[in-house]
Amino acid sequence: MAKIRAGVLGATGNVGQRFIEMLNDHPWFELTSLAASDRSAGKKYGNAASWRLDNRIPEEAADMTVVPVDPKKVDADIVFSALPPELAKKVETDFAKAGFAVASNASAFRKEKDVPLLIPEVNPGHLALVELQQDKRKWDGYIITNPNCTTIMMTVTLKPLMQFGIEKIYLASMQAISGAGYDGIPSMTMLDNIVPYIGGEEEKVESETRKLLGEFNGSEVIDAPFEVTASCHRVNVMDGHTEAVWVHMADNPSPDEVKKGFLDFDPGLSDLPTEPSPVIEVKEEPDRPQPRLDRNLGGGMTISVGRIRPGIRYICMGHNTIRGAAGASVLNAELLKKMGKL
Amino acid sequence: MAKIRAGVLGATGNVGQRFIEMLNDHPWFELTSLAASDRSAGKKYGNAASWRLDNRIPEEAADMTVVPVDPKKVDADIVFSALPPELAKKVETDFAKAGFAVASNASAFRKEKDVPLLIPEVNPGHLALVELQQDKRKWDGYIITNPNCTTIMMTVTLKPLMQFGIEKIYLASMQAISGAGYDGIPSMTMLDNIVPYIGGEEEKVESETRKLLGEFNGSEVIDAPFEVTASCHRVNVMDGHTEAVWVHMADNPSPDEVKKGFLDFDPGLSDLPTEPSPVIEVKEEPDRPQPRLDRNLGGGMTISVGRIRPGIRYICMGHNTIRGAAGASVLNAELLKKMGKL
Amino acid sequence: MAKIRAGVLGATGNVGQRFIEMLNDHPWFELTSLAASDRSAGKKYGNAASWRLDNRIPEEAADMTVVPVDPKKVDADIVFSALPPELAKKVETDFAKAGFAVASNASAFRKEKDVPLLIPEVNPGHLALVELQQDKRKWDGYIITNPNCTTIMMTVTLKPLMQFGIEKIYLASMQAISGAGYDGIPSMTMLDNIVPYIGGEEEKVESETRKLLGEFNGSEVIDAPFEVTASCHRVNVMDGHTEAVWVHMADNPSPDEVKKGFLDFDPGLSDLPTEPSPVIEVKEEPDRPQPRLDRNLGGGMTISVGRIRPGIRYICMGHNTIRGAAGASVLNAELLKKMGKL
Amino acid sequence: MAKIRAGVLGATGNVGQRFIEMLNDHPWFELTSLAASDRSAGKKYGNAASWRLDNRIPEEAADMTVVPVDPKKVDADIVFSALPPELAKKVETDFAKAGFAVASNASAFRKEKDVPLLIPEVNPGHLALVELQQDKRKWDGYIITNPNCTTIMMTVTLKPLMQFGIEKIYLASMQAISGAGYDGIPSMTMLDNIVPYIGGEEEKVESETRKLLGEFNGSEVIDAPFEVTASCHRVNVMDGHTEAVWVHMADNPSPDEVKKGFLDFDPGLSDLPTEPSPVIEVKEEPDRPQPRLDRNLGGGMTISVGRIRPGIRYICMGHNTIRGAAGASVLNAELLKKMGKL
Repeated sequence: MAKIRAGVLGATGNVGQRFIEMLNDHPWFELTSLAASDRSAGKKYGNAASWRLDNRIPEEAADMTVVPVDPKKVDADIVFSALPPELAKKVETDFAKAGFAVASNASAFRKEKDVPLLIPEVNPGHLALVELQQDKRKWDGYIITNPNCTTIMMTVTLKPLMQFGIEKIYLASMQAISGAGYDGIPSMTMLDNIVPYIGGEEEKVESETRKLLGEFNGSEVIDAPFEVTASCHRVNVMDGHTEAVWVHMADNPSPDEVKKGFLDFDPGLSDLPTEPSPVIEVKEEPDRPQPRLDRNLGGGMTISVGRIRPGIRYICMGHNTIRGAAGASVLNAELLKKMGKL
Repeated sequence: MAKIRAGVLGATGNVGQRFIEMLNDHPWFELTSLAASDRSAGKKYGNAASWRLDNRIPEEAADMTVVPVDPKKVDADIVFSALPPELAKKVETDFAKAGFAVASNASAFRKEKDVPLLIPEVNPGHLALVELQQDKRKWDGYIITNPNCTTIMMTVTLKPLMQFGIEKIYLASMQAISGAGYDGIPSMTMLDNIVPYIGGEEEKVESETRKLLGEFNGSEVIDAPFEVTASCHRVNVMDGHTEAVWVHMADNPSPDEVKKGFLDFDPGLSDLPTEPSPVIEVKEEPDRPQPRLDRNLGGGMTISVGRIRPGIRYICMGHNTIRGAAGASVLNAELLKKMGKL
Repeated sequence: MAKIRAGVLGATGNVGQRFIEMLNDHPWFELTSLAASDRSAGKKYGNAASWRLDNRIPEEAADMTVVPVDPKKVDADIVFSALPPELAKKVETDFAKAGFAVASNASAFRKEKDVPLLIPEVNPGHLALVELQQDKRKWDGYIITNPNCTTIMMTVTLKPLMQFGIEKIYLASMQAISGAGYDGIPSMTMLDNIVPYIGGEEEKVESETRKLLGEFNGSEVIDAPFEVTASCHRVNVMDGHTEAVWVHMADNPSPDEVKKGFLDFDPGLSDLPTEPSPVIEVKEEPDRPQPRLDRNLGGGMTISVGRIRPGIRYICMGHNTIRGAAGASVLNAELLKKMGKL
Repeated sequence: MAKIRAGVLGATGNVGQRFIEMLNDHPWFELTSLAASDRSAGKKYGNAASWRLDNRIPEEAADMTVVPVDPKKVDADIVFSALPPELAKKVETDFAKAGFAVASNASAFRKEKDVPLLIPEVNPGHLALVELQQDKRKWDGYIITNPNCTTIMMTVTLKPLMQFGIEKIYLASMQAISGAGYDGIPSMTMLDNIVPYIGGEEEKVESETRKLLGEFNGSEVIDAPFEVTASCHRVNVMDGHTEAVWVHMADNPSPDEVKKGFLDFDPGLSDLPTEPSPVIEVKEEPDRPQPRLDRNLGGGMTISVGRIRPGIRYICMGHNTIRGAAGASVLNAELLKKMGKL
């Protein structure tokens, strides 16, 4: 089988580097194009990017010449977008018009009615929006998006709790610095400190969770009817968003019933190369999950939960630039492939 | 006016050192006795204690000879207790029997019906329990306690919200490492990490908050009728507990009304030397309070709040070993003095 | 006595904020002018600056209107310069021409033959260069400079060792992040990391040390004849540069003789308000000095030494933005005043 | 080929866990015995050890029952020792007497004249001491040791410089917290701090380096004739010791000649499974090596160097619990096997 040709838009940043790490040696995709800003275009990727991951830059990627973020210059079937928000709307539109499948980690299109906001284990059926999108917009290509990193960790754990009748959710997040981009936060801000604010984050979590868990009725997604209220905080952790969650449910399940829900959760996607096993790992130790110890489980794709207490209260934690960003887009693309959309 | 003679029990630890820092040059109290374990007794305090604060050890304290934790060896009118929980119950009893006023930061007696759990700005009237305590226990002295550090920050901010009819409280804490004692947490545990668990902490916050905001009816304190549900987490911050709080209130006040409640809060205790002004500082910046920048306001006694949002949600933060421990006991002792109990 | 009117150039940055902290309530100087870039000029300082120190912004400073960095807009007898290197050369020249005394923390003029590079405890006699400077340049005002932060800590400790015949110096520094400016280093760079490189730092230390310890022969400063070889590294510490130093000396003094040299060191400047006592503090504990515990000694102006071992090897440590920057300039200005130059 | 049966002594600690990680799936060794203190003996390893690495505990190891540190209870051909210093002398003697090959990471025997202190790339010929040792001590087994972690990083880089006539070495280390053991350093000690002292470390580096680079004359090792002077410091980094080194050499090579020495270094051990390629990696970037980015190169066995400057000065860095501890012992054991000693 020939591999699907894949490009990365915004290839030099934190998330762009994670895309390259995940697409290198991917069984289904082949990295054919790295696009970045004019400052980088024309250079070898190895010279254009300041590689910040703690493994070596993949040699093939290092040798590729960076191209501009322009559909005419990008040679690929699908593009993964790690573009900054101010660019994403226009550029992703250009690529979709030009016939590309666009798997985007940017927030620009997440709220659009005809654009799927997708987590394969949560709402694969929302993929049907793609056809409506292409009809309506007259695009040859299309756009699918993955949620905000904070949303993803919690929402995957909410999926197996839907059976109990979710009524209201409280979320307090403790988010890693890599979520703000490499130069996002000065070291003097974070050392011996917490910043109890992340611009726009609470609003994203609150709206995206409801769309993800909403129902697709054949023509649109009806938001899930429960309320989500979030308080988001930055802590001095490199990778891994830790979230304290309270979930009120109509059936008032016990902690053991909730735990069983997590343990039994099987979305049936083990044929996707990036799908971890398990998707949700239940930690038995009283002081887990912890980001440093648990963020790399399942190649950074497993979401760990622990401390399931009456309330229902629990902790969930996952790798924000893998499960919460690049890995989310790659998993979405794998679902596209499985569904015959690529 | 002669100063009141003050001793410190458990003088060598984190909180013991803060007691010495706060009682040194105190206008009402004079440090007359430093008591610690047998390992330290008999040595000069300067040699017995490994001073960990970032100012110099007060010279007079350094020259004092440490005495055993024994009422017969301690020369004082009041003792401040920074004893570990396993010792506090017996030792504090011994001191109260022997006629000392005991202002305790330990948790041993906090739940006892006849022992005041006290924050001067919140429930000064509960001090009346002292007489009931002395009657019942036939003690010449008595014990008063201050709450757990996490409880204090939140409860002070709840006091001015009582007018709106509190119904339910959610709390997610991000707590500093100094709260676990100097040797409490290995550096390998905290670097690049969060520990989403602090043993016993959630239970303490949930019960203490209700006792503090409860009503004294002349013979006992009736717990406040609302529910408190907490999730407590350790983060890599030296000092300063940051807390994300949701407060449901019957009157459904707006964020502006809540802010006004904070700004108008005046417990009328400005004659106490350790009372900060203001007690609650409202931060206007969207990303405050932050522990590194705000924990030392008011000599570490001010509690900062910010991000008052619909919900009502807000952030509160205070210095855990000052406002949340040593300073809490000292402020309680100042209230004792004002009320003529010393 | 009327106070000397003082301005700060570059008032909004890290070092600028330290200048304001140190000049607020200074017994000899009165803060009359705060100058910063056009972005800030015209605003109240409290609005223009993002105050990052862990005390409150002084109220009077907060209320001052920021002026442009222009001699015609600055009302002062002396200006303290915290300007970035690319601006300092031109702007400081403008101020000196216009008759101001300029006490600069910038590196622009440090190597100029007729500009004193000054540490009051080390080479007060170099101040005589000011007259040569004014003659040669036909300036009404003049410029004096203080060394780089890393240079200062070590050089103060070298002064009492000059008696033993210094022959060669090795220096390995572990420098705090505040030395790079507030936005200087991303948090992702420093967490769980060291950066073994600081651009230009080694060259500065090597040349400045020799000028400081050089001899003024009435017309110029002859560099000290020994070699200095440095390796400079950034570590994840907020404030306080720690330095491991080897000093080879002709007289081959013992560690005890070196220690006595430090203990006996008295530059006779106790009449300067910012001069700490002692200037050099000798720590006896085997694991000191440590930046977190010792950087604030003497209001941040004391330099701590410890671990004096055969070799001679020792550790020195001081507060980089106080003793190593703003405090250095203020102390220099106090020397100017004492010498009748203001 | 049957695998060699391997045991680990001190299997529950930091280094013990690294041994298990490295021996799991090792092509030549098979993990047959895990020995630890009486507190752990009799339990499943998965229950006895608190696994602190950021990968999963290997399942087979987790299921093994921990045995006491007793030659009669350990089933193995070779034992890897991660014992604490106070136990190592007696226990390792017992195992060597009982016929085991002992590859020790402990310091107990490093200075013994008849015990090889070994780095395969540096002094493989010293292995000949084993026969002298067995003759002299009448042991059926024998002991070989690897150096202290700080010594290893530097000494590997010194080996290719021996050709230039090393005369004197200065070393300033910035060492990771994992070197002190899991509970070795409280978090309050390390946050925002440096500790400029590590007990016994400087003496170890100074003596071990000379033994390693010394000459075996058929009956004993004559220490290398140059002086080593070290200053050792602890910084807040998880793994990876960074070292600033000055090397004086008789031939006075240029930085380019030194760099060529590093690049050309090939100890000819690529048939050892744990040998990295390259052994020494030369970083071209001005700000490398950095522990967070470079410590895992070559599976943690590569030593990175950079900033080769006149002096000769350079930076070297390697993973302290892999290349500097468990990996060092495993590589030594692989050399034993290659040399027919197992």
